[in-house]
Amino acid sequence: MTSQWHEQPVGLVGLGLIGGSLGVDLVARGLEVRALVHRPATAERARQRGLASSISTDPDVLDGCGLVVLALPLDRLLEPPLELIAALPAGAVITDVGSVKAPVLRVWQGRVPRFVASHPMAGTAAAGVEAGQRDLFRGRPWVATPVADTDPEALAAVRELATAVGADWLECAAADHDRAVALISHLPVLVSAALLLAADRGATAAGGAVPALARALASSGFADTTRVGAGNPELGTLMARCNPEAVLEGLAHYRSALDGLERLVERQCWRQLELELDQCRELRPPYL
Amino acid sequence: MTSQWHEQPVGLVGLGLIGGSLGVDLVARGLEVRALVHRPATAERARQRGLASSISTDPDVLDGCGLVVLALPLDRLLEPPLELIAALPAGAVITDVGSVKAPVLRVWQGRVPRFVASHPMAGTAAAGVEAGQRDLFRGRPWVATPVADTDPEALAAVRELATAVGADWLECAAADHDRAVALISHLPVLVSAALLLAADRGATAAGGAVPALARALASSGFADTTRVGAGNPELGTLMARCNPEAVLEGLAHYRSALDGLERLVERQCWRQLELELDQCRELRPPYL
Repeated sequence: MTSQWHEQPVGLVGLGLIGGSLGVDLVARGLEVRALVHRPATAERARQRGLASSISTDPDVLDGCGLVVLALPLDRLLEPPLELIAALPAGAVITDVGSVKAPVLRVWQGRVPRFVASHPMAGTAAAGVEAGQRDLFRGRPWVATPVADTDPEALAAVRELATAVGADWLECAAADHDRAVALISHLPVLVSAALLLAADRGATAAGGAVPALARALASSGFADTTRVGAGNPELGTLMARCNPEAVLEGLAHYRSALDGLERLVERQCWRQLELELDQCRELRPPYL
Repeated sequence: MTSQWHEQPVGLVGLGLIGGSLGVDLVARGLEVRALVHRPATAERARQRGLASSISTDPDVLDGCGLVVLALPLDRLLEPPLELIAALPAGAVITDVGSVKAPVLRVWQGRVPRFVASHPMAGTAAAGVEAGQRDLFRGRPWVATPVADTDPEALAAVRELATAVGADWLECAAADHDRAVALISHLPVLVSAALLLAADRGATAAGGAVPALARALASSGFADTTRVGAGNPELGTLMARCNPEAVLEGLAHYRSALDGLERLVERQCWRQLELELDQCRELRPPYL
């Protein structure tokens, strides 16, 4: 099955990290890309950066697009303005880039006829109109979560778009996606954030020279373990807010794992602790 | 006050990451370095790598050294063989490199007259005779934890050694050092290890496609947050075993911080969660 989406312009709603990166990659491949943004200043800057062929704050810019990517933050995806829905060309394939899929499907499936829920797993700490960059998706997973009545041709079109920018295509159930990302993406944010809070409170409680020492002695291990916990607070909150059941499920597994390690320290079961840490060393490589 | 330690050979006991790196740096500075190692094969390889001027499994190699660095793992520092103590030249300045200081002081202070407890905070994942490298200590902290009867001239000698290899010298109380490293080095190992266990158990419990998905979708955030938890299991265990009070204290702060975040998710207090994550973002830079 082939689709004809690339014979019409591709639409982008939003030119942040994902939308902007998609825009430059597609323009570089000779496609016509039409982008809708919220603010005139963003449109102006996005034009300077060449993030799309035409960029406007007027929803009519999407007229004639065969495929539109909603490259919006999760909260805006879950409460889409009516004028956005009205601006989507009738019959166009519509996909999103949200990092949680079940709630996106609840809002969008059935609201537009050819909707495909998808999630390109590409991220950097950057955000906004300055963040878009070439080849962001190359070699990264792009996950679609089709449902029974997803249009197969629409799914094929999104797949072609994803592979056109070098992404690795995957399909799975939305609930499975949401549980997996809770464990490997949303849980690490909370685990890492709690380490920053604990180091700060522990050092403050110890007092004296300890707070300054903790800062002076922290090395790459502390820096790595706390990186995602010090990331974008809005994004971290949105992930938890849109995926609370799976995040709480992950936290329960985490608490039980940490309790187990703590018990080994309390009971001075050093041989067993070493075995657990040895297991951790073996667990990590398949995730890399 | 100046010390004359560098007019005599420097002794090293052990040529792993720390001992070997110290050896190459000191040899490069024209010092005579005499090293005692445990196994003949290690001596042979260390000679090939040029880690010291003379290397032997015979404790007599340390004869005539004015300063000896015990570059041994914590467990061997805490249960030193009698023949090692007997081999240390009378009157020499002795220092160690252990990552926990109070238990080292309990064993060594008073046992040799000119002992200085110290801890160069330089590490890589590497270990053993292949690990030693040039400039490992440059710009990294080297902490000494002197006590009331530490010989000031011995302390000055260790300070000169540390600064000779480019380290930043710090002095503090052993208890403060041990609390600080519990928070920024030992706690992160357990926090990070628990994340690997939780991801594995959570994915296995979810079943179906989730375990494979979790592995396929994990990105640099998961890799960074789990790096130290998948490190050397012996070293991770030794840290906890030699510093259990401070590690348990850190774990209590950690549990309370994570419980607080979890409660915000349970109660759907999204504004408050965002404020906490925003605080985390501000907490991190002073540790970098």
